[in-house]
Amino acid sequence: MTRPLGSHSGHDLITQHTEDPSLARIGAFSDGVFAFAITLLILAIHIPQPTDADASRGLLTLLTQQWRSYLAFALSFMLVGINWANHRVMFSAFARANHTLIWLNLMYLMLGVAFMPVPTAVLGAWLGSPDNQVVAAVFYGGAATVGGLVYNLLWWYGAYAAKLTSPALSARERRAYTIAWGPAPLVVAALTAVAFASPRVAVVGYVAAVFAYVLPVPRLVALQRRRREHSKRES
Amino acid sequence: MTRPLGSHSGHDLITQHTEDPSLARIGAFSDGVFAFAITLLILAIHIPQPTDADASRGLLTLLTQQWRSYLAFALSFMLVGINWANHRVMFSAFARANHTLIWLNLMYLMLGVAFMPVPTAVLGAWLGSPDNQVVAAVFYGGAATVGGLVYNLLWWYGAYAAKLTSPALSARERRAYTIAWGPAPLVVAALTAVAFASPRVAVVGYVAAVFAYVLPVPRLVALQRRRREHSKRES
Amino acid sequence: MTRPLGSHSGHDLITQHTEDPSLARIGAFSDGVFAFAITLLILAIHIPQPTDADASRGLLTLLTQQWRSYLAFALSFMLVGINWANHRVMFSAFARANHTLIWLNLMYLMLGVAFMPVPTAVLGAWLGSPDNQVVAAVFYGGAATVGGLVYNLLWWYGAYAAKLTSPALSARERRAYTIAWGPAPLVVAALTAVAFASPRVAVVGYVAAVFAYVLPVPRLVALQRRRREHSKRES
Amino acid sequence: MTRPLGSHSGHDLITQHTEDPSLARIGAFSDGVFAFAITLLILAIHIPQPTDADASRGLLTLLTQQWRSYLAFALSFMLVGINWANHRVMFSAFARANHTLIWLNLMYLMLGVAFMPVPTAVLGAWLGSPDNQVVAAVFYGGAATVGGLVYNLLWWYGAYAAKLTSPALSARERRAYTIAWGPAPLVVAALTAVAFASPRVAVVGYVAAVFAYVLPVPRLVALQRRRREHSKRES
Repeated sequence: MTRPLGSHSGHDLITQHTEDPSLARIGAFSDGVFAFAITLLILAIHIPQPTDADASRGLLTLLTQQWRSYLAFALSFMLVGINWANHRVMFSAFARANHTLIWLNLMYLMLGVAFMPVPTAVLGAWLGSPDNQVVAAVFYGGAATVGGLVYNLLWWYGAYAAKLTSPALSARERRAYTIAWGPAPLVVAALTAVAFASPRVAVVGYVAAVFAYVLPVPRLVALQRRRREHSKRES
Repeated sequence: MTRPLGSHSGHDLITQHTEDPSLARIGAFSDGVFAFAITLLILAIHIPQPTDADASRGLLTLLTQQWRSYLAFALSFMLVGINWANHRVMFSAFARANHTLIWLNLMYLMLGVAFMPVPTAVLGAWLGSPDNQVVAAVFYGGAATVGGLVYNLLWWYGAYAAKLTSPALSARERRAYTIAWGPAPLVVAALTAVAFASPRVAVVGYVAAVFAYVLPVPRLVALQRRRREHSKRES
Repeated sequence: MTRPLGSHSGHDLITQHTEDPSLARIGAFSDGVFAFAITLLILAIHIPQPTDADASRGLLTLLTQQWRSYLAFALSFMLVGINWANHRVMFSAFARANHTLIWLNLMYLMLGVAFMPVPTAVLGAWLGSPDNQVVAAVFYGGAATVGGLVYNLLWWYGAYAAKLTSPALSARERRAYTIAWGPAPLVVAALTAVAFASPRVAVVGYVAAVFAYVLPVPRLVALQRRRREHSKRES
Repeated sequence: MTRPLGSHSGHDLITQHTEDPSLARIGAFSDGVFAFAITLLILAIHIPQPTDADASRGLLTLLTQQWRSYLAFALSFMLVGINWANHRVMFSAFARANHTLIWLNLMYLMLGVAFMPVPTAVLGAWLGSPDNQVVAAVFYGGAATVGGLVYNLLWWYGAYAAKLTSPALSARERRAYTIAWGPAPLVVAALTAVAFASPRVAVVGYVAAVFAYVLPVPRLVALQRRRREHSKRES
């Protein structure tokens, strides 16, 4: 008995497993890495101990003098949070995965998510050191820039090169995402350049960028949607 | 060919993705952060090493002298556990999410969940230090108060400002939750004020509050339910 | 319009949320804590650094001299693994949860799962110290005993006191679980008593118990099942 | 009333719970361990502090001098990523689990996944030490070899000894996986042998092997598939 072509055969099974190991599983694994990395950021905050050499200065001083670490923790928590929220949006736009997407996604999780506790801890510990604050701020900005670039690379590959997006996503909506996500690494790279001149201004810029970036994506997409609906009504 | 309005079109897709990135995913991500943060609390307990300077005092002494760290671990485990259980209840009451809810939830996860290992470790390490126990107890109480406030802010926003609750949740039931959750930060803030006078009494109060708080929520809600059923029968 | 009693009303909603916040969610949260705690056991293994005071002894010596830490890691990994596998079986036997079960489960996760990295690291670090190995082995055995007791308490409460088990689970099968799980804390407590006399024998006993315990549960249940089927055929 | 044999009875319930605690749950638990262990690899990177003894050398020097740790982090991230992707493929090929599979899987998670942060940190810290780099590279390669062996053991047990694979998976496809996964531990073992002579060449080999291994699996399987389809058409 011959099975008709296109039936749910071993062919589909293998295709599904090696070419598209279920977007859902990649998303769930990514969510796990996001959740652990965001919680692990807390390691940037040093726990003072009564046996520390500077314990005689008092707990209040020990806690308040590392305010830069709290700032770095909060900044990175929101940054990784933005990454998580956008990553969710990106993966909902995909209809399927392929081998390359899995590896680009792993690369992104490595550089843009799991690595972040390191520059976060470095920024918090060294921003107060006059001789080293430039390096700390540039290291942080550089890491965030690389993360943003790989994020965009993931999107460009999935949406344009491999055409993995859902058919329900129109070309305009796809472009809206591209436009919304594209500028982020450029902005962070510019702020990283500023850090060479003034690390403090750069850090203020990182904070401002994070809080500003929370908004534009839905706005830009909503704008495109309104335009599309407008042109629909006219046709 | 024009698609009928209201069909499952790109419009819905976008709305769903940016405005309501599935409550389920937010809940799963939050659960990940809860589970990881609650496990990470164990870092508050110092592992004595044979190479430590005070190792000659013997392992038994080293283990028992840090009983305050075990207490702080247990206290925070139950506190984060309460937060998890209530957060689950809150999110089951919601029918949809929006952009602001995602960010308020991230803020809550940052301040009320992921940050808790720090005050927990500080409380365990410094509660035995006469000069610093006030700072340790106030720091712990302050962190728990802020967590409780952001939790309520999340609920007030979702339930009243943005009206995201399920239609199946009556106004009375919604109020029952508001009444059940509202007092928590006030109680913890009051205990934090007590900590300025007596940090030990405050810590006893934190423990008592945690164990007492396990009960009232279902009781209050059950009370409201009984009242509603009572008034139903009469109508 | 009055809704018929027993419809999917607000009553059910509330009952479901506060009394039975979905077994699935409790299971998923517990699985998260299990997965993190089992991975966090690796912190028991000290990473030697070239800047360590004893670095001149060579990496090979530094790695091999802490073989007790590898042993403790493997022992606890299998112990937490047994706990996870049994916890899964227990929760599949439940048909619903209630408020008390949630809190007993949290207590179990705290004492039997999240706390385990501490006695594991202590056992690995101090088992080689002649003066302190009794304390290390008793501390480990004591923690495992408490974990086993709370596990059984959770089962007894759910299966007998609150009758939360599925109707498909016969009384005999329920008893089979009770018999299979009951002896574990007794065995570990006996080995803990042995540790006062000979900590090394006790640790060998812990290892033997872990590997032996992997088997009996399915055997005992299968035995009961065979008996039941036998009596069925005869009736 | 007697239930017909084979109905969804307590028999099935028990079978399902103890013999096949749902592949989905094992997969989800494994995914949690993978996601956590891959994120925990970051602990291999030492965070320099301004209070460190060598802080006067400047942050830039402190960051760049530990480039081997960054390399080890990236290498292990990709290695654990490969393991995760392949583990997913393996478990999708299974139709059911049994008791032994659960324990072999736990063994694999312990040796091949959760343990990896230790050799990763050791490799990064000691590869630059002339007297110890052989030990560091052999330790790393040995750990990766053991992980690969247990992975293959898991597959051989599930696919051949216990015949747990899905009926949809043909014998040829099964063999394709066996052939694709089999060589990995041999290659890593050979590189580990090279490490005795030249640890640097071995590490270059590990990196090359990781990047090369990303490709062959789907290729080999696709090859087998094409052959099968070819022979189908001819029959």
